Amino acid sequence: MSVVKRHYELWGFTPIDTPVVERPEILSAKAGGEINKQVYGLRLLNPPEGSADDSKDLGIRFDLTVPLARHVAANQNKISFPFRRSQFGYVMRGERSKRGRYRNFIQYDIDTIGDGVLSFQNDAECIAAVINIFCELAFGRFRVHINNRKILMGWFETYEIISDSDQRQAMTYIDELEKVGRQEVISNLSRLGLNEEKAMELLTILTDDFPVDEMIEKLEQNPANNQKLLDGISELKKVVNSLRMMGASEEHFCVNLSIARGLDYYTSTVFETFLEDHKGVGSIASGGRYEDLAEYYTNKKLPGVGVSIGITRLVMKLIDAGIVDAKVNTIAPVLVTTQNLDKNQAFYLKTARMLRAAGIGVETYFQDAKLAKQMKFANKRGFRIALIANDEECEFGVVQMRDLKTGDQEKVELGDLVNHIRQILS
Amino acid sequence: MSVVKRHYELWGFTPIDTPVVERPEILSAKAGGEINKQVYGLRLLNPPEGSADDSKDLGIRFDLTVPLARHVAANQNKISFPFRRSQFGYVMRGERSKRGRYRNFIQYDIDTIGDGVLSFQNDAECIAAVINIFCELAFGRFRVHINNRKILMGWFETYEIISDSDQRQAMTYIDELEKVGRQEVISNLSRLGLNEEKAMELLTILTDDFPVDEMIEKLEQNPANNQKLLDGISELKKVVNSLRMMGASEEHFCVNLSIARGLDYYTSTVFETFLEDHKGVGSIASGGRYEDLAEYYTNKKLPGVGVSIGITRLVMKLIDAGIVDAKVNTIAPVLVTTQNLDKNQAFYLKTARMLRAAGIGVETYFQDAKLAKQMKFANKRGFRIALIANDEECEFGVVQMRDLKTGDQEKVELGDLVNHIRQILS
Repeated sequence: MSVVKRHYELWGFTPIDTPVVERPEILSAKAGGEINKQVYGLRLLNPPEGSADDSKDLGIRFDLTVPLARHVAANQNKISFPFRRSQFGYVMRGERSKRGRYRNFIQYDIDTIGDGVLSFQNDAECIAAVINIFCELAFGRFRVHINNRKILMGWFETYEIISDSDQRQAMTYIDELEKVGRQEVISNLSRLGLNEEKAMELLTILTDDFPVDEMIEKLEQNPANNQKLLDGISELKKVVNSLRMMGASEEHFCVNLSIARGLDYYTSTVFETFLEDHKGVGSIASGGRYEDLAEYYTNKKLPGVGVSIGITRLVMKLIDAGIVDAKVNTIAPVLVTTQNLDKNQAFYLKTARMLRAAGIGVETYFQDAKLAKQMKFANKRGFRIALIANDEECEFGVVQMRDLKTGDQEKVELGDLVNHIRQILS
Repeated sequence: MSVVKRHYELWGFTPIDTPVVERPEILSAKAGGEINKQVYGLRLLNPPEGSADDSKDLGIRFDLTVPLARHVAANQNKISFPFRRSQFGYVMRGERSKRGRYRNFIQYDIDTIGDGVLSFQNDAECIAAVINIFCELAFGRFRVHINNRKILMGWFETYEIISDSDQRQAMTYIDELEKVGRQEVISNLSRLGLNEEKAMELLTILTDDFPVDEMIEKLEQNPANNQKLLDGISELKKVVNSLRMMGASEEHFCVNLSIARGLDYYTSTVFETFLEDHKGVGSIASGGRYEDLAEYYTNKKLPGVGVSIGITRLVMKLIDAGIVDAKVNTIAPVLVTTQNLDKNQAFYLKTARMLRAAGIGVETYFQDAKLAKQMKFANKRGFRIALIANDEECEFGVVQMRDLKTGDQEKVELGDLVNHIRQILS
């Protein structure tokens, strides 16, 4: 999380926070597809008799982008655009929970919101930030798969999937490809009026896999000359062009026309990120561009583009893969052990206080326990240093300082203790 | 928040996180009093037809202590006790929301959990940490008001309020003193079987105000010789004694027998913290000791003590009082302004990339806008440095570096830019 935070800040995405609750009708309108069935609302468990339960007006955010739209619309006169913000927080979806897939999970987002217009360099920035983050985290080979929904819509039109609702449905079918497999997508697409042959043809186009420039060239040579498709290609080229100037190499991104995203609000660039050696993990960083997210709140056009990293899912998968360790050590490096606490309390508390004043974290052991038990606790909780003082040492103001990593122990006067500890810790 | 975080860490309270949802029956059992009517649960806004909505099993945490109990019980074999943890997160209560009082707010907690026993030094640690935090924050004069529920229960018994439910009710009445005033508390207490004279007498005892040692002395001289009361006094003395050894002075704490706390689970030490010059703000840091919080999850006795700082409420009040500023500046110090972006994009992106690689936060201005507009944006968003380069400068690899605080501007070659910027920022 600190790596993600640092990179977000390097690009100027400034942290804000918004409430967990939003208006239910907005959440329902913006969720779309599968997620629409997963939106939570509140209710009082024990409503007081006779008084109205106004919790029916409270929905729970399923992402951090819809709340951002409300925030920006409400504060549009105070905000200087383009507005880059980061946000870290819980969101909820009524999924069937399983390991790595929770109803309650943390997202860590960045978005840039423009006033009326927003350049496609901003799309590239989001992708470049993701690439920088996962390069530094070094979880293994990864690649951002980039698409543009206008390209999808263009192909849908070419294949006679015309109405807005049919196109949304087709988008959902394509999004499910990894989950349900080719045959089911083809059969689903057939429901929208295509025969099976055409559906297969469309899916083949959308799952073609070529190097970026070759892919774009092929798209430009398509005979249908559909305007949506041409717009999408032009936008995609701008994003790829800027992305390269930001230092990204094709080792870390590709064009993948089957990327659709499960949320209704995307209108242009969309992308997902996969660990090449752990495809089953699913996308670890997803995002895209949306033109009209704030339409419910304001007449002003506030286009945006952003990316969300699903921290909870990612961390669980990293723990499972043995890449990160779930053990919680103490955050303090020093344990003050105690003997004959009633008598020596003042000395132990003074020692701890002195170290804290010097910025050194300290726990004091307050239970009545033999020293051996306290040392076992010190090792188990991951302290670096244990301080030990018996009655006599307390009286004379000295402690035994034990380095739990090396096993070294030396007698130190209280006045020298801060320096000695700093030496070990540095 | 960074001050709170640093102090919590200095005392060895290690950060953990837990889910927002808990089992409804546990939340209801542990809330008590007013808060019980405010506990939220989940429901699906648009449940899918035919399938069961299992959200009835999901309640939303109203504090961070009840979830801690479940976490500790579930992981008791992995945890080394005493277990000091900090937690930062959203909680929800169905309150009537008003400025500074929200249904959705952030708490920042510490707790220490013992295995079977827990020394009263741990209570003192929580209070000492709070005192250190508010000393450093310097929001003005403040004082932690300390009590012990056994003292309250002892006095209740002395005044013939005997049954468990009557004592809980009396606790709630006392807790409401600030809100409803003396007369209403007296009339409420009368409902529990006291006549008005006795109720007034009891309230007078509980609202006596003396220096700490004098207060304890008076308590010890009480004629009733009630065991609960004696136990409470003995515990209170231990806490005060250790607190003083930790460096706290009576400038920052007092004994206040009318502190009861609104949550049912406290069994011993309780305390609240008030800004002396802003009593209307209410308690800004509250806590206490609980013996049986994990009883629903485990047969093991896991006593705990903790404190919660209500960040949201506190911050709103500080904004209102003009003590903190709600303005959101950019987190990046440098803005790369742009001219003729289509032509010069590569240069601007290279410059930004170089600075980020050196750990300097940068935003790039991607909209098509006159330089004057970009400089206005730079000032409004609080950038420290603006970089300016026209066609010729881009070609020759130099930029105009403007210090937006001093107004100084100088021409710098790209190779020297990192050093020049570091000089201004340091």
